[in-house]
Parts: sequence; structure tokens; C-alpha cells
Amino acid sequence: MARHSARDVRSENRFEVLHALFDLGPSSRQELARHTGLSQATVTTLAGEFLAEDVLRIAAVERKRVGRPYERLTINPDRGRIIGVDVAETYVDATVYDLALGVLGRHEVALDEDQNDQAYVVDGIAAAIGTALAASGTGRERIVGVGVSMPGHVQHDCGVSVFAPNWNWHDVRIEELLAGRLELPLYVDNPLKAAILAEMWFGAGRVVDSMAVVNIGTGAGAGIALEGTLVRGATNNAGEWGHTLLALDGRPCRCGRQGCVEAYVGAPGLETTLAEIDPSHPALGQPGQRDFVATLAVGLAAGDPVLRELLRRTGRHLAAALGDLVNLLNVPTVTLTGWLPKALAEWLLPAVREELPHHVLPGSLPGLTVDISEVPGNAVSLGMAAFTLEQFLNRLGLASPAGTRPQPVG
Amino acid sequence: MARHSARDVRSENRFEVLHALFDLGPSSRQELARHTGLSQATVTTLAGEFLAEDVLRIAAVERKRVGRPYERLTINPDRGRIIGVDVAETYVDATVYDLALGVLGRHEVALDEDQNDQAYVVDGIAAAIGTALAASGTGRERIVGVGVSMPGHVQHDCGVSVFAPNWNWHDVRIEELLAGRLELPLYVDNPLKAAILAEMWFGAGRVVDSMAVVNIGTGAGAGIALEGTLVRGATNNAGEWGHTLLALDGRPCRCGRQGCVEAYVGAPGLETTLAEIDPSHPALGQPGQRDFVATLAVGLAAGDPVLRELLRRTGRHLAAALGDLVNLLNVPTVTLTGWLPKALAEWLLPAVREELPHHVLPGSLPGLTVDISEVPGNAVSLGMAAFTLEQFLNRLGLASPAGTRPQPVG
Repeated sequence: MARHSARDVRSENRFEVLHALFDLGPSSRQELARHTGLSQATVTTLAGEFLAEDVLRIAAVERKRVGRPYERLTINPDRGRIIGVDVAETYVDATVYDLALGVLGRHEVALDEDQNDQAYVVDGIAAAIGTALAASGTGRERIVGVGVSMPGHVQHDCGVSVFAPNWNWHDVRIEELLAGRLELPLYVDNPLKAAILAEMWFGAGRVVDSMAVVNIGTGAGAGIALEGTLVRGATNNAGEWGHTLLALDGRPCRCGRQGCVEAYVGAPGLETTLAEIDPSHPALGQPGQRDFVATLAVGLAAGDPVLRELLRRTGRHLAAALGDLVNLLNVPTVTLTGWLPKALAEWLLPAVREELPHHVLPGSLPGLTVDISEVPGNAVSLGMAAFTLEQFLNRLGLASPAGTRPQPVG
Repeated sequence: MARHSARDVRSENRFEVLHALFDLGPSSRQELARHTGLSQATVTTLAGEFLAEDVLRIAAVERKRVGRPYERLTINPDRGRIIGVDVAETYVDATVYDLALGVLGRHEVALDEDQNDQAYVVDGIAAAIGTALAASGTGRERIVGVGVSMPGHVQHDCGVSVFAPNWNWHDVRIEELLAGRLELPLYVDNPLKAAILAEMWFGAGRVVDSMAVVNIGTGAGAGIALEGTLVRGATNNAGEWGHTLLALDGRPCRCGRQGCVEAYVGAPGLETTLAEIDPSHPALGQPGQRDFVATLAVGLAAGDPVLRELLRRTGRHLAAALGDLVNLLNVPTVTLTGWLPKALAEWLLPAVREELPHHVLPGSLPGLTVDISEVPGNAVSLGMAAFTLEQFLNRLGLASPAGTRPQPVG
């Protein structure tokens, strides 16, 4: 464990106050002290620094029958605006948030999944942001930062998208491309890191310190937190669970390897499985991945036996791959996020849960929970907004290292 | 990240001094301050507490031409004796250490791999310890603790071996069984946790904060450290890399699942692969796993082409499974330990390294090193002795939480 200086501890304490406000809503200093386990004097000092920067404001002054009146503090939503952007293979989703990470407006631009041109993708990002800003009535001068999640391997410290297998991108300097276009403070990271930060702030991670969130769409990956710390890895490339093996020498994967988890549980993987069961099934005629998955949901709701078999096999593939994650890391909680599990949750979750005991070691199974993520809206956009809020507080001198969430107390 | 109290920081600083002494040998307070990044006043205070408990002693007093004489401090090897025990499916290895974790004596007792009776295993442990003590001329009254590693899932906080798949053990209360027999302070843990602690104290973990050590013998598993912290998981069951999939519906594994890594890279897995290549190969006639692997080494040294093919396939299996570990965690360093990789290193390591680029994502490959562990002797016994030393220092009021190693500075 890294040594902590007094300054580190101070930054972490500051974030505990912020997280307590996200958890509790408007709260008195006494309530914040109780929730965080910090002394009331510490809470008063830290809150004072946030108030001085207008990041917190006084929501109300209340009076009891006896004693002094007390103030309820809240995050000041109007201190600025943050944009969180989820760039995936099939869409760009841009969401405008207030500083309390409440959603003000949102716009999605579809991307042609067969297009991988850099200018095409950058155009899509700029268009989604522009429309989301207009929809929310937000002036550009109010924006304190834009967080953009890019698929693939993103070196977040220098904003380079090194490797995006689905687009065959190599060493694309995405931050430079975007910065010239947007002229706003920019933070670029990978969707797995964004998804787990969102879980730590607003999902299952509020009550557990160690967990994984599995994000599935075209591709698949896992955001991982252990003991309250986001696992980034040596080159910010941790979490590539989609590129661990389900079957040596199995289906070809877009990463160049064969038999990766992604080739079975991503949307194209489901198409392959369906073609194995019934190559003439009408769902296979859909133009795009999202249409395909939407068609599956309709067919499953109507009781199509072939699609039920597809979900049984997919549930088994997913349970096997989740079993590997749990056997390796012994995390007590796994959530599923992304457009694919959300669209098919009703059928996918029972299929996974039925198979899971066959794949998880007995010592890691008791207490294990696998659920659809409770994070509202697009978890990747929200996580990118949370990173961007950290960056903004950092510029004000108020932040802890990106991606950390202090351990809840009590 | 968990909040740190002043006391935690103090304990961590204490351990930095101890680790600096392990790294540097006898050192002045100035050298310890330089190596740890702590202030000289802090080092003087902490060293004073260790000296008062006789855990450190003054090795020498040196004089320079000018200035005051200075003392070289060292860990006091004679403050007590520690026994580290590695219990595996085929042997019990007991090593007697001094308090500076220098080896004083060692004894190995072979276990019949087809025996899984509790009394048989406990007898083996007691016999190995007894003979090792006699060999080192150590009286029982000098022993400050015994650390015993048991295969399988060990709940280390209550000393219960919950699940040992190779022996079909369930909820065996090993600490109770051993405590009655040994009448010495006992610490029970799992070999993966011991192996990674040994790496963090004495191996590759002295220069990197995040790494995995892969332990292969009859079974296989990975000890994992991320940012200097040992990954235990929710029920101390993290690291079961041997029970992640190489191939869905592949070879039967002793855990009950099919296609686990262990069924391909453990000693019985190599027997299966050899039988697939040449079912009449004479190496398959060996009575035990260790004889089998010793025979492989002899045959490989003589250039047997069938065994070369066995190593090529095993190198590919191992590279694929290491690729999964690296893709998921993006650790920059992996070491191999255990009797199997040590016996076959000369042939296994090149085979693994050749295949690795086909299984590791491009973003995680640059700088990745895979090597045989440099930890001297039996890493599991040494790690168990290190845990036991931490426990002893804890009883004296001098320890940090078990399994942590402060980050090196400079």
C-alpha cells in the first residue's frame, strides 16, 4: 500500500464529504460527520473550502425547538456544467450534467458500425455534444469540462487512443483532434474505467468496496474496483475481460486472437450463436447490431423457442466468463451494464444466475450477487462526467487522485 | 481507497524500515531514511521501538574521520525462530528460519498423492516440522510462530480449510487440528497469498508495485499484488487462476468444472497432453507426478522430440492463460514459481515467451516481463514465515496489517 501523506488523507476526506452529499442529499455538517466518520471540526473545515469555491451552497437554514439553527449543505448544481460522452462502435451518446451530476439534456448520434474514419467519429462526437447543449439550453461558457470515453485502449494521461480493435485504430491522438474542435477542457478515458467510477459513486459501489461492472455492447469489458480503488493497470489497460479466453482456438475475435469472451457475449457473438442454432432465423436479417438485439427482445417476449435457446447458451457463456472473473478476483458483487444486457435483462439474468454455480468455486459463491447495474442512465457518460468533476475540483485545488472513492464508514 | 489513520501510516512507516533492512542489509539510520524517504527523526523513533523489543540490534559502530560515530542497525536474527510450512498434494516442506528470515534447516516429507485423510496430512506436517527442527538444532522454546500454507480455499482469519479440491476436503478445521498437535502460535493461509508476499518482500515485488506470481505444481494459481497491496478477495479466495477457463467444455478439472487452466498446466495436465501426443511414451509410466516431471527434464535434455512437442503445447497453454491474466489486470510483471516451472524452466520459459505476443493485447505487451521467480528456496514457506513474522510483530505492537508492503521510494 502506498504511503499516504497528510495531504493525501486530506484530499480523501474532502471527497468523503462530497460523496456523502451525493448519497444523502442536502445535509447538515452533523449528518455529514456521522456518515463519513470524520470529526465535525474536519467536516466544517472541508465544507468551508468547498463553500468558498461555490462548489457547495447552503440549501436551507433550519431551526429546532432548542439549540442554534443549523445549515443544510448541498452541491451547487449551477456552479457549472459538465458533458459526459460515451463513444461506442454504434453510437455517440452526449449528456449535459449540472455540477451535482443531474441530467439536463442528452443526445445520441448513430454511428455506422462499418465506418472507422477518424474525422467521421470526431464529427459524430461534435454533433452529439452540439445537439445535447442546444437541447439543454446550455451556453458553452458555462461548461467546466468534457469527459469523453473512447472504446479500446486509451492512455488517459496523454489522451491517446492507442488501440481500438473494432476500428483498427492505432495511436490515434484523439485528445488533440477533439481539443481543436471543442475548445473546452477535455478528459479522455476508457469506458471500463468510467463504468466502474459510476458504480463506485452511484451504484453498487456505494455499499461494497470491491466489485466488477461488466459492460457489454458490441464489445465487452470489466471495470474493476478493489478495496475502493479503481484498477487501471500499468498502462490503463486493465479490465479487458472481453479479451480473456472462453475457448482456446474458438471463434475469431476482432482483437486477432481466437476464442475471446467478447466473441461469445458481444452483440456480434450473439448473432454467431443464433446462426449456429438456426442460420435461417429472421432476426439475423437486421441491418445493425442494435436492431438485432431489439428484435431479440421482441421475439423473446413472444416466446420464440429458438431465441430462448440462444439466451440459454448466451447465459452459459456469460456465466462461464463471469465465473473466471470471480474465481480470479473473489469480488462479492458483479453488475452488468451497457445496452445489450439492459435490453435483454429479463431473459439474460435468470439464464446467467442458473449457470453461475457451475462456474464459480464454492469458496467464492456464498454471498455473490450478479445484477443489472442500478446506475441511472448511461453509466459510461455519468462516469466520464464524474472524472471530469474530479478534474475540475483538482484545478480548484480540491480534488483527490482521479478514480478513488473513500471507503464508506458505518 | 480506505481512509488511513495516523496509526496506519505509522505502522506502514515501521514496515518500510524493516523492508529497507531486508533490502540493504545492516544500515545506518541515515541510509534507512534515504532508502525509505522517511525523515531521519521518524526513522530514529521507529528504530528505537524495534530496538527496545530486541527485534533490531546494533550490528556495528563506525567512525568517520570527522563527525560523530554512527551505528549500523540490523534485524536481530536470534530474537526467535520461525517455521514456514508448504503443504502441497505431494509433499510437506518445513523450513526453520531465524527472525531475519535466514534459513537454518529444512525437511521435506513426501505425501502419497492418493491419500487425503486428515490425520495422514497432519502427521506429515508434524513429522516435517520435527525433523526440520532437529536438523537446525532449534529448541521448541525459541519458536515465535509457525506459518502453514494449505492448498485450496483457506479462510485465513479463522484457520479453516474450507475446500481443498484435490483432497475433497470440506470445512476442515485445520488450525484446531494443528494447534493441538504443535502447541505453538499458528498462522494458516493459502500458498498463493504466501507466494505473492514472498515476491513482495524478496522477489520482483521489491521494484514493482503490481505483479502476479503464478504457482504451478499439481494445481495452479496466481498470487496477485496491485499497487503494493495483496489481493485477497472477499473470502480470501482470490487468485484461483488455475480455475479460470482455458477451454469451455474442455478437460475435466478436479474442481468439478471442465476446461480449467489447471487441467492443462498442472503436472497431471502435462500427463494428459503427453498421452494425447504419444500414449505409449515411457515417461507416462512414472509412479508419481514429481517423478514424471523429473523424467521430462531428463528426456528434454536428451532432445526427445515428443517431449519437445509436449513443451511447445504446454508453453502455448500457459501463454494463453497468462495472457488472460495480463489482459484482465494489466500487470507489468509475472513470475513463475513452484516445483514444476522450476524443474522445466529451461524449456518452458522460451516456449511461453514465444507464444505470449499472440495472447496479450498490444496495449499491455510493451514492458511485460515473464520470468522464473528469483525468490530463494521455497517461496511458499518463505512467504508463510513472512506472514508469521508480521503476526509476531503485531503481538509486540509493531506490525502493519498482514500482507501489505509499503511502496519503495526513489
